[in-house]
Amino acid sequence: MFSVQSREVTDLLRTDLKHLIHPHQPSWATDRVIMVEGQGCRMTDATGREYLDATGGLWLAQIGHGRAQIAEVAAAQMRKLEYFTAFWDFSNDQAIELSERLISLAPERMAKVFFTSGGSEGDDAAIKTARYYHYLNGHPGKNWILSRHTAYHGLAYGGGSATGFADMTEGQGPHLPHVSHLTPPHSYRSHLFDGEDVTDFCVRELEQRIQQIGPENIAAMIGEPIMGVGGFIIPPADYWPRVQQVLRRHDILLIADEVVTAFGRTGSWFASPDLGMDPDIIVTAKGITSGYIPLGAVLMSEQVGQVVTSGHGYPVGYTYSGHPVACAVALKNLDILESEDLLAASRTTGDLLYQLAAPLAEELEIVGEVRHAGMGLALELVTDKETRAPLPQPGLGVADVIRDQTGVIARVSSPTNLVLSPPLIMTEDEAITAVAAVASVLRRVRPDGTIACYR
Amino acid sequence: MFSVQSREVTDLLRTDLKHLIHPHQPSWATDRVIMVEGQGCRMTDATGREYLDATGGLWLAQIGHGRAQIAEVAAAQMRKLEYFTAFWDFSNDQAIELSERLISLAPERMAKVFFTSGGSEGDDAAIKTARYYHYLNGHPGKNWILSRHTAYHGLAYGGGSATGFADMTEGQGPHLPHVSHLTPPHSYRSHLFDGEDVTDFCVRELEQRIQQIGPENIAAMIGEPIMGVGGFIIPPADYWPRVQQVLRRHDILLIADEVVTAFGRTGSWFASPDLGMDPDIIVTAKGITSGYIPLGAVLMSEQVGQVVTSGHGYPVGYTYSGHPVACAVALKNLDILESEDLLAASRTTGDLLYQLAAPLAEELEIVGEVRHAGMGLALELVTDKETRAPLPQPGLGVADVIRDQTGVIARVSSPTNLVLSPPLIMTEDEAITAVAAVASVLRRVRPDGTIACYR
Repeated sequence: MFSVQSREVTDLLRTDLKHLIHPHQPSWATDRVIMVEGQGCRMTDATGREYLDATGGLWLAQIGHGRAQIAEVAAAQMRKLEYFTAFWDFSNDQAIELSERLISLAPERMAKVFFTSGGSEGDDAAIKTARYYHYLNGHPGKNWILSRHTAYHGLAYGGGSATGFADMTEGQGPHLPHVSHLTPPHSYRSHLFDGEDVTDFCVRELEQRIQQIGPENIAAMIGEPIMGVGGFIIPPADYWPRVQQVLRRHDILLIADEVVTAFGRTGSWFASPDLGMDPDIIVTAKGITSGYIPLGAVLMSEQVGQVVTSGHGYPVGYTYSGHPVACAVALKNLDILESEDLLAASRTTGDLLYQLAAPLAEELEIVGEVRHAGMGLALELVTDKETRAPLPQPGLGVADVIRDQTGVIARVSSPTNLVLSPPLIMTEDEAITAVAAVASVLRRVRPDGTIACYR
Repeated sequence: MFSVQSREVTDLLRTDLKHLIHPHQPSWATDRVIMVEGQGCRMTDATGREYLDATGGLWLAQIGHGRAQIAEVAAAQMRKLEYFTAFWDFSNDQAIELSERLISLAPERMAKVFFTSGGSEGDDAAIKTARYYHYLNGHPGKNWILSRHTAYHGLAYGGGSATGFADMTEGQGPHLPHVSHLTPPHSYRSHLFDGEDVTDFCVRELEQRIQQIGPENIAAMIGEPIMGVGGFIIPPADYWPRVQQVLRRHDILLIADEVVTAFGRTGSWFASPDLGMDPDIIVTAKGITSGYIPLGAVLMSEQVGQVVTSGHGYPVGYTYSGHPVACAVALKNLDILESEDLLAASRTTGDLLYQLAAPLAEELEIVGEVRHAGMGLALELVTDKETRAPLPQPGLGVADVIRDQTGVIARVSSPTNLVLSPPLIMTEDEAITAVAAVASVLRRVRPDGTIACYR
């Protein structure tokens, strides 16, 4: 029967295909999941189908979907002061309060906050900040940026040039000059390191690269504490401390891209201290508002902040910097993270997810490794445990099959890590459901990447 | 008397100076106007002082401040679906509806919409789109971008490289390669054109530049129909038609940056058709939500949209692309612009502003020219009407004095255009007040830029 609702769905689908461009979606792929509702970890699409959100949208729905408390704060702030610029000497109370709150939660050396509307704006601002810092310190040539392959630093032109995925940058160049990519500390992909200790290899490569470019020419290294899009890659414990040592010796700033990791994803407010990083600049977004409204924040040390606001002032400006509603929502979101103890929940439920998923590496030929930190979990999918070669995806992707057959939303990332990053409010039962759904499909994945329809 | 309120203000100020970085504000400038409320065109700061907002924040508060209707829509949407990703095959009803609505309002050839969180993200996406279009059409070398001096295309690295202000890009390079700047069609600055007709000069320069770079190497020209930050520069009527002709002959795309002009600022939904542009890509933000929530939209023709979504899909993605709350707010904002006939108001009240301000060019030695389109108004301030040399600003700026002495918020832009861009709901009385305030200070500005304290 062709109901009114399904006519509406058909209209929505037709309009979507006619007008809307989705990131990374080719025009020949004409299926859509049109979300219309979300409550907690549960989503509903336009056809009435329900889903369990085990990705938190894009790593960000920390406090869960559809919370009335946030809606009330946003509405109240819109009625009172929806927007005024924070350029020049203009300011507003919400941006000021949030700046103080963020600094109180951030690693010790952080002192200054510049607001953006998201991670991409933030990564561009961070690169500009690092270069401008050295410029004002009398070193205009100190402008190279070190990054890593399979890094993700957004897709504006600056951060996007540091992003380490060829398919995301292909055909859009020339990109920002003076960006150089290093090997990611992805221990499981041991072929990258020629049998050498991962950190030894990476530090040696870093020192060589610095000598090639010249330390006097390098402004900063940018890196995610744990590489998100790259497959939730957790570096060895000595990686960041030793990298940091090398950078400091050469007066190279460290930019921590915490867009994915900050605000509870890994069980902490910020992941960088846990990983042994002592960054000069931290880029955040996503979890700062749990996605209820676009917002990002670039944090920096007193020293960096002082230098880049000397002269004629900080040279980066985005219209919505310090947006009062975005800042009010962020304050309420941080309140909820605190009052509901969601950082502890991230650790506890994250441990449960891991305990449930880890045995799959023993059970299944195609699961090479299971990694986690807080409520970020990755299952590295391989075609062969000996060679550790990534699982090919010849047809419909593993995450698509999981979603279609179980209603659980998971993600496959770079190239075949199955990643879960659920809302931090996920219940124990939902966590069990999520891993069971993943397992039910993985058990049917063949080493060539094809998936048997039924068990 | 030191009241509780003023202690709070002191605390806010101290916290601001300690933690918050404001775009373009040097650290030695320690005054702040801390906004806490806005209703209509009226703002109130933390000390209780009231202001008349004649800049619409940053060119964007079209429907005015603090409107409850928008707050209600935002809250309802947050309760229902605050966010899900629109990457890949995920979508949502609000983004779909807004894409259709935008295309219905946009110039004829526009067919596809990619959502961003603001103009800077949009300008970067537009440049990527133009380059990627030619790349996929088999012309990977066709990647140069033509822009203009005193253009403003945001401050992410891509658009920021096209932005034509040295002080905004100094010390942050190297910038995006293959960007070339032309002369802006600023008729009043006649020295730029060696006595030649402005359009003749600009078109000849454009053709020469194209020959120098090689038409086979140029992807697109990016330009604001009317240059906003540059000083609300309105080109001669034949400028864009003739530029367009040249571009088309060489298969060079035209990107219209309508971040400032679209959604009623100039009295139309989009300014480009009025200026004789027929762009392939249009970048919007600001007025699309009147600033209630960060949002931008990049519109493109069917042809461009088809090409850039072929292959592995559109290669730009921002977390909040298609944000359901932002799109719901935009839909309501467009409803209000329509139902209150604010495009007509922009023309009517804009004409009034102009009629009130235009006589100042006769009356005052320091007002060289008064320009307007809809509710964008610029008074070009000069030190000498003969040489047309810009008015120096040796001390406190003209806009600061206007604000301090009259409570009217105006802006001085590039280098000394006094610009008004009020909410489109501004009343006749408020318009009279705004121009009177501006005039009261301009009458005391000496040709050396100093300002007499009293009349």
